[in-house]
Parts: sequence; structure tokens; C-alpha cells
Amino acid sequence: MSDLHGECPLCQSTGGLLVATGAHWRVIRAEDPAFPAFYRVVWTDHVAEFSSLSVSARAECMSVVCAIEQVLLRVLRPTKVNLAALGNVVPHLHWHVIARFDGDSHFPQPIWGEAKRHVDSAVAMLAVTLAELDREVAKAVGDLSLDD
Amino acid sequence: MSDLHGECPLCQSTGGLLVATGAHWRVIRAEDPAFPAFYRVVWTDHVAEFSSLSVSARAECMSVVCAIEQVLLRVLRPTKVNLAALGNVVPHLHWHVIARFDGDSHFPQPIWGEAKRHVDSAVAMLAVTLAELDREVAKAVGDLSLDD
Repeated sequence: MSDLHGECPLCQSTGGLLVATGAHWRVIRAEDPAFPAFYRVVWTDHVAEFSSLSVSARAECMSVVCAIEQVLLRVLRPTKVNLAALGNVVPHLHWHVIARFDGDSHFPQPIWGEAKRHVDSAVAMLAVTLAELDREVAKAVGDLSLDD
Repeated sequence: MSDLHGECPLCQSTGGLLVATGAHWRVIRAEDPAFPAFYRVVWTDHVAEFSSLSVSARAECMSVVCAIEQVLLRVLRPTKVNLAALGNVVPHLHWHVIARFDGDSHFPQPIWGEAKRHVDSAVAMLAVTLAELDREVAKAVGDLSLDD
């Protein structure tokens, strides 16, 4: 029943490292060296705007976003978590969930803003390995998949 | 019962042009000349992260965000709507809801990125006046306030 578009990169490919899959969404890690703890919740159907989802689908989508945010807060203790659904380049609903640290290259700027400082190894700021973090994220959102 | 912090600018002041007020939130317009159709949903309590809200509060918050998004889509027919909860500078939950147009100064970059072009009058891209847009937004979110 999914509504896919032939020319949309998020309909055609995973879009990042696949971490978890639900009935209506997938979680990928963006693999951005400057922001290693950067996940995306990609809605399976090709929908541009969040408000185009039904109320129950919005709730499901944000429950996944919040589960990731809670893992990032608990495991990494970041300065802040940033959430965004932009889609100007790829208008297929995907939520960015990004752990930010006050020593990261752009803080307090959004990651799309101007760099504030050079950082040799952003991944060194993380309390756990990315493989461990992926497992925690997968576990947290996997519990949500059971409701599907 | 609201939890306010003395040094937080969003606890101390409105933070923009007040458009509507609910029991747990307010809607302001950011008054950004480059992005005139730019609203913010400010949660009244001083909470940093979206996932710190209860499930019902998250739903209420996103219903306000979605009501604004739907007004922007219907009235302005923008190229895209951008949603974001960042809070790196002011860690008090506020959602950005921004109508984007492919001729705006930054498109397809996020508004926090590098400008792509000079635009004389961004407000001239809007199909209605800002006063009319504010009235449509207030009406849309006002219906939600009735549920409080």
C-alpha cells in the first residue's frame, strides 16, 4: 500500500545506514563525520509535508523521533537535541534527530549554519561507539514496531 | 502550574509578535524580513526537549504546529514548509514553522545556511498580507484552544 515515487531518492534507496525498520518508517544514521549522532526517521510513503499524515500517523512518527531523542539524551548527555523536517532538496518526509554538543563544529549554530570551530574527531565526543548507539536506537524504536 | 525560569528569554518575554495563545502554548510570528511567513509555537512551560513532554502534550503541540503548516500550505502555496525544534541558543521548547519558496533568499538551503540570492522584498511573494495570514493562523489554532 506504500506510495512510492520513481524519481525520489528516499523512495529509491535507504538514504543512509539502516538502523531499524517499522511498518511505516525506517531509521537511518546519516553518517555525517561532523555530527556522528545524527539519525533520520524516513516515512515510507512519499509524502512531502508532516501535516499531510493522519493524526495517528503523525503520532506514530513522532513517537519514533522521541524514542531516538530519548536514547541520545540518556546515552550521550548532549548539550541539546535538534529536530527538523525540512525537505527542501528531497521533499519526502524525513525527520532529522541530531545530538549536539557545545564543542561541536557549529554549536550553537544549526548544523546547516556557519562552522564556529575546527574539531578533529567529533565521534570522540560520544560516550559510546556508534555501533553501540545504533543498537540502543534500534532497541528503543523496535519496541514501537511491535504496535504496528 | 507553569514552570518558568528567570533567565530564559522565552519565559520573560513573548519572543515575537503574538498571534494566538492557548492554555499551554503561544504562537508568535518571528518578524524575519527574509522569511516573512515564519511562525513559532512556544511551549509555555520551560522544557528544553520535545520528548520531555507527555505523550498528550506532544500531540497537542504538534497539532498546533500542523494547524499552522496547513494554513501556510492552503493560503500561500509555498514550495515547502520547514519545521524545526533546535533550541541551542534558547533551550526552551519552540517549534519553527516556516513557509519556503523556491525564490526565497536561501532556497533550497535551510534558512540558517548560506544565502543563495538577493531578494528585494520577500513579503511580496506572499498571496496575502501578513495581517491576513496572522488572522488565518489565529483562527486555525484558536479552534485547538477550545479543547483545553
